[in-house]
Amino acid sequence: MTERQQRHFEDELEQLKARLLQMGGLAEERVGLAMQALVERDPQRVDKVLGGDSQINTLHIEIDDRCFKLLALHQPMAVDLRAIVAAVKTNTDLERVGDLAVNIAEAVRRYLMHPPVKPLIDIPRMAGIAQGMLRDALDAFVRRDAPLAQAVLAADDQLDALKTQVFRELLTYMLQAPLTIEPALDLILISRHLERIGDHATNVAEDVIFMVSARDVRHRT
Amino acid sequence: MTERQQRHFEDELEQLKARLLQMGGLAEERVGLAMQALVERDPQRVDKVLGGDSQINTLHIEIDDRCFKLLALHQPMAVDLRAIVAAVKTNTDLERVGDLAVNIAEAVRRYLMHPPVKPLIDIPRMAGIAQGMLRDALDAFVRRDAPLAQAVLAADDQLDALKTQVFRELLTYMLQAPLTIEPALDLILISRHLERIGDHATNVAEDVIFMVSARDVRHRT
Repeated sequence: MTERQQRHFEDELEQLKARLLQMGGLAEERVGLAMQALVERDPQRVDKVLGGDSQINTLHIEIDDRCFKLLALHQPMAVDLRAIVAAVKTNTDLERVGDLAVNIAEAVRRYLMHPPVKPLIDIPRMAGIAQGMLRDALDAFVRRDAPLAQAVLAADDQLDALKTQVFRELLTYMLQAPLTIEPALDLILISRHLERIGDHATNVAEDVIFMVSARDVRHRT
Repeated sequence: MTERQQRHFEDELEQLKARLLQMGGLAEERVGLAMQALVERDPQRVDKVLGGDSQINTLHIEIDDRCFKLLALHQPMAVDLRAIVAAVKTNTDLERVGDLAVNIAEAVRRYLMHPPVKPLIDIPRMAGIAQGMLRDALDAFVRRDAPLAQAVLAADDQLDALKTQVFRELLTYMLQAPLTIEPALDLILISRHLERIGDHATNVAEDVIFMVSARDVRHRT
Protein backbone atom coordinates (compact mmCIF):
# COMPACT_ATOMS: atom_id res chain seq x y z
CA MET A 1 0.00 0.00 0.00
CA THR A 2 1.20 3.55 -0.68
CA GLU A 3 1.15 5.95 2.25
CA ARG A 4 -2.05 7.48 0.94
CA GLN A 5 -3.72 4.10 0.59
CA GLN A 6 -2.58 3.17 4.07
CA ARG A 7 -4.12 6.37 5.46
CA HIS A 8 -7.36 5.68 3.62
CA PHE A 9 -7.35 2.10 4.94
CA GLU A 10 -6.88 3.36 8.48
CA ASP A 11 -9.73 5.84 8.11
CA GLU A 12 -11.96 3.03 6.93
CA LEU A 13 -10.81 0.80 9.78
CA GLU A 14 -11.67 3.55 12.29
CA GLN A 15 -15.16 3.78 10.84
CA LEU A 16 -15.50 0.01 11.02
CA LYS A 17 -14.50 0.06 14.68
CA ALA A 18 -16.99 2.86 15.38
CA ARG A 19 -19.77 0.74 13.82
CA LEU A 20 -18.79 -2.28 15.88
CA LEU A 21 -18.85 -0.18 19.07
CA GLN A 22 -22.24 1.19 18.10
CA MET A 23 -23.56 -2.31 17.44
CA GLY A 24 -22.09 -3.59 20.71
CA GLY A 25 -23.72 -0.68 22.54
CA LEU A 26 -27.10 -1.50 21.00
CA ALA A 27 -26.79 -5.21 21.79
CA GLU A 28 -25.79 -4.48 25.37
CA GLU A 29 -28.63 -1.98 25.74
CA ARG A 30 -31.16 -4.57 24.60
CA VAL A 31 -29.83 -7.11 27.09
CA GLY A 32 -30.14 -4.42 29.78
CA LEU A 33 -33.70 -3.65 28.71
CA ALA A 34 -34.69 -7.33 28.87
CA MET A 35 -33.19 -7.56 32.37
CA GLN A 36 -35.01 -4.42 33.54
CA ALA A 37 -38.21 -5.98 32.19
CA LEU A 38 -37.51 -9.02 34.35
CA VAL A 39 -36.52 -7.22 37.55
CA GLU A 40 -39.25 -4.57 37.38
CA ARG A 41 -41.84 -6.99 35.95
CA ASP A 42 -42.48 -4.58 33.10
CA PRO A 43 -44.29 -6.02 30.04
CA GLN A 44 -43.76 -2.78 28.09
CA ARG A 45 -40.02 -3.27 28.14
CA VAL A 46 -40.56 -6.90 27.06
CA ASP A 47 -42.52 -5.66 24.05
CA LYS A 48 -39.81 -3.15 23.28
CA VAL A 49 -37.17 -5.87 23.05
CA LEU A 50 -39.47 -8.22 21.12
CA GLY A 51 -40.40 -5.34 18.79
CA GLY A 52 -37.31 -6.04 16.75
CA ASP A 53 -33.69 -5.13 16.49
CA SER A 54 -33.71 -3.73 12.98
CA GLN A 55 -30.91 -1.29 13.84
CA ILE A 56 -28.64 -4.16 14.86
CA ASN A 57 -29.59 -6.14 11.77
CA THR A 58 -28.85 -3.19 9.51
CA LEU A 59 -25.48 -2.66 11.17
CA HIS A 60 -24.74 -6.39 10.92
CA ILE A 61 -25.08 -6.29 7.14
CA GLU A 62 -23.30 -2.94 6.82
CA ILE A 63 -20.31 -4.10 8.87
CA ASP A 64 -19.94 -7.32 6.88
CA ASP A 65 -20.08 -5.27 3.73
CA ARG A 66 -17.38 -2.88 4.97
CA CYS A 67 -15.16 -5.85 5.85
CA PHE A 68 -15.53 -7.33 2.36
CA LYS A 69 -14.70 -3.99 0.75
CA LEU A 70 -11.65 -3.53 2.96
CA LEU A 71 -10.40 -7.01 2.09
CA ALA A 72 -11.07 -6.61 -1.64
CA LEU A 73 -9.82 -3.05 -2.13
CA HIS A 74 -6.90 -2.86 0.28
CA GLN A 75 -5.76 -6.47 0.47
CA PRO A 76 -4.39 -5.91 3.96
CA MET A 77 -1.60 -8.01 5.45
CA ALA A 78 -0.53 -9.19 8.91
CA VAL A 79 -2.18 -7.36 11.80
CA ASP A 80 -4.49 -5.40 9.47
CA LEU A 81 -5.72 -8.62 7.87
CA ARG A 82 -6.23 -10.18 11.28
CA ALA A 83 -8.16 -7.08 12.39
CA ILE A 84 -10.61 -7.37 9.48
CA VAL A 85 -11.17 -11.09 10.00
CA ALA A 86 -11.63 -10.41 13.73
CA ALA A 87 -14.19 -7.73 12.80
CA VAL A 88 -16.13 -10.25 10.68
CA LYS A 89 -16.23 -12.67 13.60
CA THR A 90 -17.03 -9.99 16.18
CA ASN A 91 -19.87 -8.78 14.00
CA THR A 92 -21.38 -12.29 14.07
CA ASP A 93 -20.97 -12.51 17.84
CA LEU A 94 -22.65 -9.14 18.44
CA GLU A 95 -25.58 -10.06 16.22
CA ARG A 96 -26.07 -13.24 18.27
CA VAL A 97 -26.06 -11.19 21.47
CA GLY A 98 -28.91 -9.16 19.99
CA ASP A 99 -30.76 -12.43 19.27
CA LEU A 100 -30.15 -13.59 22.83
CA ALA A 101 -31.73 -10.39 24.18
CA VAL A 102 -34.85 -11.44 22.26
CA ASN A 103 -34.64 -14.96 23.70
CA ILE A 104 -34.38 -13.48 27.20
CA ALA A 105 -37.38 -11.23 26.56
CA GLU A 106 -39.43 -14.23 25.39
CA ALA A 107 -38.62 -16.08 28.62
CA VAL A 108 -39.41 -12.93 30.67
CA ARG A 109 -42.79 -12.65 28.95
CA ARG A 110 -43.69 -16.17 30.09
CA TYR A 111 -42.14 -15.59 33.53
CA LEU A 112 -44.35 -12.55 34.17
CA MET A 113 -47.46 -14.73 33.82
CA HIS A 114 -46.66 -16.26 37.23
CA PRO A 115 -46.02 -14.85 40.70
CA PRO A 116 -42.30 -14.27 41.34
CA VAL A 117 -40.38 -17.40 42.35
CA LYS A 118 -37.83 -15.60 44.51
CA PRO A 119 -36.02 -12.29 44.86
CA LEU A 120 -33.69 -12.02 41.89
CA ILE A 121 -30.08 -11.50 42.87
CA ASP A 122 -27.79 -13.84 40.98
CA ILE A 123 -29.43 -13.44 37.58
CA PRO A 124 -29.05 -9.63 37.48
CA ARG A 125 -25.49 -10.22 38.69
CA MET A 126 -24.91 -12.60 35.79
CA ALA A 127 -26.30 -9.96 33.42
CA GLY A 128 -23.97 -7.34 34.86
CA ILE A 129 -20.95 -9.58 34.40
CA ALA A 130 -21.95 -10.55 30.85
CA GLN A 131 -22.55 -6.92 29.86
CA GLY A 132 -19.23 -5.88 31.39
CA MET A 133 -17.43 -8.66 29.51
CA LEU A 134 -18.99 -7.52 26.26
CA ARG A 135 -17.99 -3.90 26.85
CA ASP A 136 -14.43 -4.83 27.82
CA ALA A 137 -14.05 -7.21 24.87
CA LEU A 138 -15.09 -4.45 22.46
CA ASP A 139 -12.85 -1.89 24.16
CA ALA A 140 -10.01 -4.39 23.88
CA PHE A 141 -10.79 -4.80 20.18
CA VAL A 142 -10.81 -1.09 19.48
CA ARG A 143 -7.68 -0.36 21.52
CA ARG A 144 -5.93 -3.61 20.55
CA ASP A 145 -5.52 -4.24 24.26
CA ALA A 146 -4.54 -7.89 24.82
CA PRO A 147 -4.36 -7.72 28.65
CA LEU A 148 -7.93 -6.38 28.80
CA ALA A 149 -9.03 -9.22 26.49
CA GLN A 150 -7.30 -11.65 28.83
CA ALA A 151 -9.33 -10.24 31.74
CA VAL A 152 -12.53 -10.98 29.80
CA LEU A 153 -11.51 -14.65 29.53
CA ALA A 154 -11.07 -14.76 33.32
CA ALA A 155 -14.51 -13.24 33.99
CA ASP A 156 -16.17 -16.09 32.09
CA ASP A 157 -15.41 -18.49 34.95
CA GLN A 158 -17.45 -16.32 37.35
CA LEU A 159 -20.36 -16.47 34.96
CA ASP A 160 -20.16 -20.26 34.71
CA ALA A 161 -20.04 -20.59 38.50
CA LEU A 162 -23.11 -18.37 38.92
CA LYS A 163 -24.99 -20.31 36.25
CA THR A 164 -24.40 -23.58 38.14
CA GLN A 165 -25.46 -21.96 41.43
CA VAL A 166 -28.64 -20.50 39.88
CA PHE A 167 -29.49 -23.90 38.39
CA ARG A 168 -29.13 -25.74 41.71
CA GLU A 169 -31.10 -23.16 43.65
CA LEU A 170 -33.98 -23.09 41.16
CA LEU A 171 -34.07 -26.87 40.99
CA THR A 172 -34.63 -26.90 44.77
CA TYR A 173 -37.59 -24.55 44.36
CA MET A 174 -39.05 -26.69 41.60
CA LEU A 175 -38.77 -29.87 43.64
CA GLN A 176 -40.35 -28.27 46.74
CA ALA A 177 -43.13 -26.27 45.11
CA PRO A 178 -44.60 -27.52 41.84
CA LEU A 179 -46.21 -24.12 41.23
CA THR A 180 -42.74 -22.68 40.72
CA ILE A 181 -41.83 -25.23 38.00
CA GLU A 182 -42.85 -23.13 35.02
CA PRO A 183 -41.41 -19.77 36.10
CA ALA A 184 -38.25 -21.38 37.54
CA LEU A 185 -37.71 -23.11 34.20
CA ASP A 186 -37.76 -19.74 32.49
CA LEU A 187 -35.25 -18.33 34.95
CA ILE A 188 -32.97 -21.27 34.19
CA LEU A 189 -33.28 -20.55 30.47
CA ILE A 190 -32.53 -16.85 31.09
CA SER A 191 -29.38 -17.75 33.01
CA ARG A 192 -28.30 -19.96 30.08
CA HIS A 193 -28.86 -17.11 27.64
CA LEU A 194 -26.72 -14.84 29.83
CA GLU A 195 -24.01 -17.48 29.94
CA ARG A 196 -24.04 -17.54 26.14
CA ILE A 197 -23.65 -13.77 26.01
CA GLY A 198 -20.52 -14.29 28.10
CA ASP A 199 -19.40 -16.93 25.58
CA HIS A 200 -19.75 -14.42 22.74
CA ALA A 201 -17.73 -11.84 24.69
CA THR A 202 -15.12 -14.58 25.21
CA ASN A 203 -15.03 -15.24 21.45
CA VAL A 204 -14.42 -11.55 20.80
CA ALA A 205 -11.67 -11.46 23.44
CA GLU A 206 -9.95 -14.50 21.91
CA ASP A 207 -10.06 -12.87 18.50
CA VAL A 208 -8.51 -9.70 19.97
CA ILE A 209 -5.62 -11.69 21.43
CA PHE A 210 -5.09 -13.40 18.07
CA MET A 211 -5.31 -10.09 16.23
CA VAL A 212 -2.74 -8.39 18.47
CA SER A 213 -0.26 -11.20 18.96
CA ALA A 214 -1.12 -13.79 16.25
CA ARG A 215 -1.24 -16.15 19.23
CA ASP A 216 -4.12 -18.60 19.30
CA VAL A 217 -5.52 -18.89 22.84
CA ARG A 218 -8.46 -21.04 21.87
CA HIS A 219 -8.51 -24.66 22.96
CA ARG A 220 -6.08 -24.06 25.78
CA THR A 221 -5.91 -27.27 27.79
CA MET B 1 -3.74 -13.70 -10.42
CA THR B 2 -1.84 -15.45 -13.22
CA GLU B 3 -3.29 -18.72 -14.49
CA ARG B 4 -0.74 -20.65 -12.45
CA GLN B 5 -1.57 -18.70 -9.29
CA GLN B 6 -5.27 -19.25 -9.92
CA ARG B 7 -4.66 -23.00 -10.24
CA HIS B 8 -2.66 -23.01 -7.03
CA PHE B 9 -5.40 -21.03 -5.31
CA GLU B 10 -8.02 -23.51 -6.44
CA ASP B 11 -5.94 -26.45 -5.21
CA GLU B 12 -5.66 -24.76 -1.84
CA LEU B 13 -9.38 -24.04 -1.80
CA GLU B 14 -10.14 -27.71 -2.51
CA GLN B 15 -7.99 -28.71 0.44
CA LEU B 16 -9.76 -26.16 2.61
CA LYS B 17 -13.13 -27.59 1.62
CA ALA B 18 -11.90 -31.13 2.33
CA ARG B 19 -10.86 -30.02 5.84
CA LEU B 20 -14.24 -28.37 6.46
CA LEU B 21 -16.03 -31.55 5.35
CA GLN B 22 -13.81 -33.59 7.64
CA MET B 23 -14.50 -31.26 10.55
CA GLY B 24 -18.23 -31.31 9.81
CA GLY B 25 -18.14 -35.11 9.71
CA LEU B 26 -16.41 -35.23 13.08
CA ALA B 27 -18.83 -32.74 14.67
CA GLU B 28 -21.84 -34.63 13.32
CA GLU B 29 -20.37 -37.93 14.52
CA ARG B 30 -19.98 -36.56 18.03
CA VAL B 31 -23.57 -35.35 18.08
CA GLY B 32 -24.62 -38.83 16.91
CA LEU B 33 -22.53 -40.45 19.64
CA ALA B 34 -24.11 -38.24 22.33
CA MET B 35 -27.57 -39.14 21.04
CA GLN B 36 -26.76 -42.89 21.01
CA ALA B 37 -25.57 -42.48 24.59
CA LEU B 38 -28.98 -41.00 25.44
CA VAL B 39 -31.15 -43.49 23.57
CA GLU B 40 -29.19 -46.59 24.62
CA ARG B 41 -28.46 -45.24 28.13
CA ASP B 42 -24.76 -45.88 27.57
CA PRO B 43 -22.35 -44.09 29.95
CA GLN B 44 -19.33 -45.27 27.94
CA ARG B 45 -20.45 -43.26 24.94
CA VAL B 46 -21.02 -40.27 27.25
CA ASP B 47 -17.43 -40.56 28.43
CA LYS B 48 -16.22 -40.84 24.85
CA VAL B 49 -17.85 -37.51 23.95
CA LEU B 50 -16.70 -35.83 27.16
CA GLY B 51 -13.20 -37.23 26.59
CA GLY B 52 -12.47 -34.30 24.32
CA ASP B 53 -12.63 -33.24 20.74
CA SER B 54 -8.96 -32.54 20.17
CA GLN B 55 -9.26 -33.53 16.50
CA ILE B 56 -11.95 -30.88 15.94
CA ASN B 57 -9.95 -28.29 17.86
CA THR B 58 -6.83 -29.02 15.80
CA LEU B 59 -8.80 -28.73 12.57
CA HIS B 60 -10.43 -25.50 13.80
CA ILE B 61 -7.03 -23.85 14.17
CA GLU B 62 -5.65 -25.38 10.96
CA ILE B 63 -8.63 -24.19 8.88
CA ASP B 64 -8.43 -20.65 10.25
CA ASP B 65 -4.75 -20.66 9.45
CA ARG B 66 -5.38 -21.84 5.88
CA CYS B 67 -7.97 -19.08 5.42
CA PHE B 68 -5.52 -16.41 6.58
CA LYS B 69 -2.83 -17.72 4.24
CA LEU B 70 -5.23 -17.79 1.29
CA LEU B 71 -6.31 -14.20 2.01
CA ALA B 72 -2.77 -12.94 2.49
CA LEU B 73 -1.03 -14.78 -0.36
CA HIS B 74 -3.68 -14.82 -3.06
CA GLN B 75 -5.73 -11.72 -2.25
CA PRO B 76 -8.82 -13.29 -3.81
CA MET B 77 -11.70 -11.22 -5.22
CA ALA B 78 -15.47 -11.59 -5.66
CA VAL B 79 -16.78 -15.15 -5.23
CA ASP B 80 -13.34 -16.45 -4.15
CA LEU B 81 -13.12 -13.82 -1.41
CA ARG B 82 -16.66 -14.60 -0.30
CA ALA B 83 -15.78 -18.32 -0.23
CA ILE B 84 -12.84 -17.75 2.12
CA VAL B 85 -14.82 -15.50 4.46
CA ALA B 86 -17.63 -18.08 4.41
CA ALA B 87 -15.05 -20.74 5.30
CA VAL B 88 -13.90 -18.67 8.31
CA LYS B 89 -17.48 -18.40 9.51
CA THR B 90 -18.35 -22.03 8.78
CA ASN B 91 -15.27 -23.11 10.70
CA THR B 92 -16.54 -21.22 13.76
CA ASP B 93 -19.99 -22.76 13.40
CA LEU B 94 -18.63 -26.30 13.16
CA GLU B 95 -16.46 -25.82 16.20
CA ARG B 96 -19.54 -24.70 18.16
CA VAL B 97 -21.40 -27.83 17.02
CA GLY B 98 -18.54 -29.85 18.52
CA ASP B 99 -18.97 -27.91 21.79
CA LEU B 100 -22.72 -28.55 21.73
CA ALA B 101 -22.09 -32.31 21.45
CA VAL B 102 -20.18 -31.94 24.74
CA ASN B 103 -23.08 -29.98 26.27
CA ILE B 104 -25.49 -32.71 25.19
CA ALA B 105 -23.25 -35.40 26.68
CA GLU B 106 -23.11 -33.49 30.00
CA ALA B 107 -26.92 -33.39 30.12
CA VAL B 108 -27.09 -37.09 29.15
CA ARG B 109 -24.72 -37.96 32.00
CA ARG B 110 -27.08 -36.33 34.50
CA TYR B 111 -30.14 -37.79 32.75
CA LEU B 112 -28.83 -41.34 33.14
CA MET B 113 -28.79 -40.96 36.93
CA HIS B 114 -32.61 -41.17 36.90
CA PRO B 115 -35.12 -43.66 35.52
CA PRO B 116 -36.27 -42.77 31.99
CA VAL B 117 -38.98 -40.08 31.87
CA LYS B 118 -40.62 -41.35 28.70
CA PRO B 119 -39.84 -43.18 25.46
CA LEU B 120 -37.70 -40.85 23.39
CA ILE B 121 -39.13 -40.12 19.97
CA ASP B 122 -39.06 -36.39 19.22
CA ILE B 123 -35.57 -35.73 20.56
CA PRO B 124 -33.86 -38.33 18.34
CA ARG B 125 -35.97 -36.92 15.50
CA MET B 126 -34.68 -33.44 16.28
CA ALA B 127 -31.13 -34.82 16.25
CA GLY B 128 -31.74 -36.46 12.87
CA ILE B 129 -33.02 -33.20 11.39
CA ALA B 130 -30.16 -31.15 12.86
CA GLN B 131 -27.54 -33.62 11.60
CA GLY B 132 -29.15 -33.68 8.15
CA MET B 133 -29.18 -29.87 8.04
CA LEU B 134 -25.50 -29.78 8.93
CA ARG B 135 -24.63 -32.31 6.23
CA ASP B 136 -26.69 -30.52 3.59
CA ALA B 137 -25.28 -27.11 4.53
CA LEU B 138 -21.73 -28.40 4.14
CA ASP B 139 -22.57 -30.16 0.86
CA ALA B 140 -24.10 -26.90 -0.33
CA PHE B 141 -20.91 -25.08 0.66
CA VAL B 142 -18.62 -27.49 -1.16
CA ARG B 143 -20.77 -27.67 -4.28
CA ARG B 144 -21.79 -23.98 -4.17
CA ASP B 145 -25.38 -25.20 -4.30
CA ALA B 146 -27.72 -22.34 -3.32
CA PRO B 147 -31.00 -24.30 -3.71
CA LEU B 148 -29.71 -26.96 -1.29
CA ALA B 149 -28.73 -24.20 1.14
CA GLN B 150 -32.25 -22.80 0.80
CA ALA B 151 -33.68 -26.22 1.75
CA VAL B 152 -31.60 -26.11 4.95
CA LEU B 153 -33.23 -22.81 5.92
CA ALA B 154 -36.66 -24.41 5.47
CA ALA B 155 -35.78 -27.41 7.67
CA ASP B 156 -35.03 -25.09 10.59
CA ASP B 157 -38.76 -24.41 11.04
CA GLN B 158 -39.40 -28.13 11.65
CA LEU B 159 -36.73 -28.12 14.32
CA ASP B 160 -38.26 -25.10 16.05
CA ALA B 161 -41.71 -26.69 16.01
CA LEU B 162 -40.37 -29.92 17.51
CA LYS B 163 -38.52 -27.98 20.21
CA THR B 164 -41.74 -26.25 21.27
CA GLN B 165 -43.62 -29.57 21.27
CA VAL B 166 -40.90 -31.28 23.34
CA PHE B 167 -40.95 -28.39 25.82
CA ARG B 168 -44.73 -28.55 26.32
CA GLU B 169 -44.79 -32.31 26.69
CA LEU B 170 -41.96 -32.40 29.21
CA LEU B 171 -43.48 -29.57 31.20
CA THR B 172 -46.63 -31.68 31.57
CA TYR B 173 -44.56 -34.54 32.96
CA MET B 174 -42.79 -32.23 35.39
CA LEU B 175 -46.06 -30.77 36.67
CA GLN B 176 -47.64 -34.20 37.13
CA ALA B 177 -44.72 -36.12 38.59
CA PRO B 178 -42.11 -34.22 40.60
CA LEU B 179 -39.69 -37.14 40.31
CA THR B 180 -39.40 -36.39 36.61
CA ILE B 181 -38.40 -32.75 37.16
CA GLU B 182 -34.64 -33.26 37.09
CA PRO B 183 -34.42 -35.65 34.14
CA ALA B 184 -37.10 -33.77 32.16
CA LEU B 185 -35.10 -30.57 32.66
CA ASP B 186 -32.09 -32.24 31.08
CA LEU B 187 -34.16 -33.40 28.12
CA ILE B 188 -35.34 -29.81 27.64
CA LEU B 189 -31.73 -28.62 27.68
CA ILE B 190 -30.78 -31.34 25.16
CA SER B 191 -33.57 -30.23 22.83
CA ARG B 192 -32.26 -26.63 23.08
CA HIS B 193 -28.76 -27.78 22.21
CA LEU B 194 -30.12 -29.60 19.16
CA GLU B 195 -32.00 -26.48 18.13
CA ARG B 196 -28.74 -24.54 18.31
CA ILE B 197 -27.02 -27.11 16.10
CA GLY B 198 -29.77 -26.37 13.58
CA ASP B 199 -29.03 -22.65 14.02
CA HIS B 200 -25.38 -23.24 13.15
CA ALA B 201 -26.37 -25.23 10.05
CA THR B 202 -28.64 -22.29 9.15
CA ASN B 203 -25.71 -19.88 9.51
CA VAL B 204 -23.63 -22.01 7.15
CA ALA B 205 -26.51 -22.18 4.65
CA GLU B 206 -26.93 -18.38 4.74
CA ASP B 207 -23.21 -17.94 4.11
CA VAL B 208 -23.43 -20.32 1.14
CA ILE B 209 -26.24 -18.29 -0.41
CA PHE B 210 -24.23 -15.11 0.08
CA MET B 211 -21.10 -16.74 -1.32
CA VAL B 212 -22.86 -17.98 -4.45
CA SER B 213 -25.11 -15.02 -5.19
CA ALA B 214 -23.73 -12.13 -3.08
CA ARG B 215 -27.34 -11.94 -1.88
CA ASP B 216 -27.83 -11.45 1.84
CA VAL B 217 -30.69 -13.64 3.11
CA ARG B 218 -30.13 -12.87 6.75
CA HIS B 219 -32.69 -10.78 8.59
CA ARG B 220 -35.46 -11.57 6.14
CA THR B 221 -38.66 -10.23 7.57
